[in-house]
This record gives sequence, structure tokens and C-alpha cells, in this order.
Amino acid sequence: MASEERIVLRPIGRVESTLVDPATAPKQGNEGAPEAWLVLDEAVADGLRDLQAGDDILVLTWLDRADRTVLVVHPRNDPAAPETGVFSTRSADRPNPIGIHRTEILAVEGLRLLVRHLEAVDGTPVVDVKPVLTR
Amino acid sequence: MASEERIVLRPIGRVESTLVDPATAPKQGNEGAPEAWLVLDEAVADGLRDLQAGDDILVLTWLDRADRTVLVVHPRNDPAAPETGVFSTRSADRPNPIGIHRTEILAVEGLRLLVRHLEAVDGTPVVDVKPVLTR
Repeated sequence: MASEERIVLRPIGRVESTLVDPATAPKQGNEGAPEAWLVLDEAVADGLRDLQAGDDILVLTWLDRADRTVLVVHPRNDPAAPETGVFSTRSADRPNPIGIHRTEILAVEGLRLLVRHLEAVDGTPVVDVKPVLTR
Repeated sequence: MASEERIVLRPIGRVESTLVDPATAPKQGNEGAPEAWLVLDEAVADGLRDLQAGDDILVLTWLDRADRTVLVVHPRNDPAAPETGVFSTRSADRPNPIGIHRTEILAVEGLRLLVRHLEAVDGTPVVDVKPVLTR
């Protein structure tokens, strides 16, 4: 049943970053990832209108360099780490490689959002932006 | 450019829940959402092998009842709330209606995971499960 279904994601923009090599990119945004720009499409401009500098956000990306056939990995690419099912890891290699990046908006320039740190390489499709919920 | 690209998500399973009506479902899991089962596909069994009761997880779903053309909403469906761009809200109505649900695994029975609370209706496709990162 589920495996027969097809759902189409439509990118809303793209990451512009000095990171170009997935192999050397930080695994998490708080591990030295650089500032990056989210360059969003004119078609979604109305959806962005309330975003502003200082907002804590989740950026959802499509990690298009990932291997979707992988179900078991050595966490953090460490061969000494025991093999682990991908759903217990943040590996990019997984059936649906959606990246979730918690970061902060530093500046808004029209359709471009500057964020504090983002561990996604240049050109990565952006699929959603959500506010961080405070509980 | 980005808008020409097509990315296909493949559900890895399905939500089994007593919630059936999106209109009356809680907006967030901590607002009285019930326990629910994630019923996962045999094809991803290897990816689940390290999940266990007590794990804090993020469940990613595809909110297939959402309206993908919506860019501005009244938050929480409150007509008195000022209209807000969807990327500053957690509205299900947005260009890519990916739900992110933070919850806890209560039990694992083969390919079925019981979770503490989930604000997604019965039959919602599950697209990913990730561990919550402690920083």
C-alpha cells in the first residue's frame, strides 16, 4: 500500500553556501557550519512576509546527494561505531533524505534570508521553513 | 529553476490513530493528542532495528489533507488572528505539508511503534523517523 504511493515535493528555494563538499560539511549546524543564504522563489513570497531577523526557525531541505537505499549506517561515518538503523541516526542517507536544520535568521533581503549556521551544501533544495515552537 | 524540479517522497508507513477528523485534531502533540501507532513497511525494517521504548523521536509525516496553494493563514484557524505568512506558522496548509511531530516511543511490536502523542489523523503517511538530538 504505502510503498505504491508517490508524493511530489516542490522546492521553494535553494541554499547558497560556501560549503560545497558533503564529505567535509559539518554533521550538525552547531558544529562549525557557516552562515548561509536561503534564496527563495518569488512564487512563495507571500508565505515569507512575516519572517524577520532574530526568528528561530527550522529549515527543511532535500538532501539530494543522499543515498536513499541505505537502511543501516556507521553513525557519523565512523567505521568503529556499531552499525545502526538509519531511523536511530541523523544520517543523510535514508529513504527520504529530508534535512531539518535549526537556525536563526540574521537578515532578510527580499526573497533572501541569511541564517546563522546551516550544514547543507550549496545548491541544496529548500522545501519548507517553520518557526521553532516554544513550549 | 527550483520550481521545475520534482522530488518524490516514498511513504515508509502509515499512522494508525483514533483521530479521523483534521478539523478537530489537536494542533500540536502536547495539546491532548492521543497515543497512536506508526505502522511501518517491511521494506524499511532494517532501518528500525535500533528503535526502542523510551526513545525521543521526531516523526515526519505527509499531511495529505492539506491545501498546498495556501501562503497566508489566520494562525490556529482563529479569524481574529492577523493573517500571517505560512512560513511563520505551523499551519498544515503550506506548499510542502511536512508534519514534524516530537514524541516518545512507548512500545515496539515488530514493525509497529506505539507513540505517546501524535496530532496526525488515521492513515497519514509517515515519511521519516529521526532521533531527537540532545545538545
